[in-house]
Amino acid sequence: MKHVVLTIGRTFGSGGRLIGKKVAEKCGMTYYDKELLELAAKESGMSLDVLENIDESAGNSLLYTLSTGGAHLLGAHFAQTAEPPLHDKLYIAQANIIKEIAAKESCVIVGRCADYLLRNMEECIKVFIYAPSEARIKRAVEVYGIPENKAADQIRKIDKKRSGYYNFYSGKKWGNLDNYHFSVDSSLLGIDATADMIAEFVKQRAELLGK
Amino acid sequence: MKHVVLTIGRTFGSGGRLIGKKVAEKCGMTYYDKELLELAAKESGMSLDVLENIDESAGNSLLYTLSTGGAHLLGAHFAQTAEPPLHDKLYIAQANIIKEIAAKESCVIVGRCADYLLRNMEECIKVFIYAPSEARIKRAVEVYGIPENKAADQIRKIDKKRSGYYNFYSGKKWGNLDNYHFSVDSSLLGIDATADMIAEFVKQRAELLGK
Repeated sequence: MKHVVLTIGRTFGSGGRLIGKKVAEKCGMTYYDKELLELAAKESGMSLDVLENIDESAGNSLLYTLSTGGAHLLGAHFAQTAEPPLHDKLYIAQANIIKEIAAKESCVIVGRCADYLLRNMEECIKVFIYAPSEARIKRAVEVYGIPENKAADQIRKIDKKRSGYYNFYSGKKWGNLDNYHFSVDSSLLGIDATADMIAEFVKQRAELLGK
Repeated sequence: MKHVVLTIGRTFGSGGRLIGKKVAEKCGMTYYDKELLELAAKESGMSLDVLENIDESAGNSLLYTLSTGGAHLLGAHFAQTAEPPLHDKLYIAQANIIKEIAAKESCVIVGRCADYLLRNMEECIKVFIYAPSEARIKRAVEVYGIPENKAADQIRKIDKKRSGYYNFYSGKKWGNLDNYHFSVDSSLLGIDATADMIAEFVKQRAELLGK
């Protein structure tokens, strides 16, 4: 298959991560999610335990951000400014890794502003996966073992963290149609059929790019 | 195939209308777009020529809207208030027709707030089709014969009209992911393959609903 990269944004409990894994298997692509953290820890010398706690969280570094002219310009300004806070260091480390792996291999990348980072790459297919509340609560309880009376709150918190991270570092709005090529409510067909459909989309796009 | 209804929202020049037609053919569903206007003219006794000029346009009826407590409540208040302006009469006529046909037959309905009107219908699949500027300008020139130097402006105007209509009558935001089950950039695979994918989605959803 021609070199393509699939990025997946996802609301918590929509099954986006599992769909990404299944698409990677079906299309023979490498799958990156938490793996990016390990690579970031290795490359930066930061502790994996520390990084796990701040993964996909926006920094609170208002002064630092102002001094760099906006968080989404971090990369460009990093070299000229003082040492950035940990959240921003992790973002920069993961951003560099995402660009490196996307350039060298066909892969699926979940979360971490990958669609934004790779927005100018023709081989990138940007997908967003979501689902209505009921389906997500069901999944949060069954798959993640979250107590039913806490699931809605937990979903809200994790989505807030993800959207905060995305909006802060990209300067764009998480879940806004303009950022994606393809968005789907995974509850309509379920995880497997949704993964099949996205895999088919990826294969057809790869074929077109190969022509 | 089990009874399902596909609604298609679309940005101008994305090929959404043609994709809708192709899906209708592939799935053996009736296709409704301008046909809804003819039905509305017949049912209301209004002139088709007049209706064509105001199709998918929001009314300017601020006083009337305030008196009815918001445009998206029009239906409920219509019976209790004075005769509404023509834009609103057309909206109400089309809304009634959309609900009637959706209840009785498998069909594809393009535009006209159909996703909003049928939001509580389990058999409804809500799709939004869009494409980047370059692809839409190309299509506006080639398919609609709009001069190239006027295409971008024309696209902007028509989208503004469509979003104005949708936002005014639904109280929601046109092109906002939450309103749809499935959104796709038609430029990635092209019209035919996008139609194939949506047809497959519709067939699988119908099968699930039939179980």
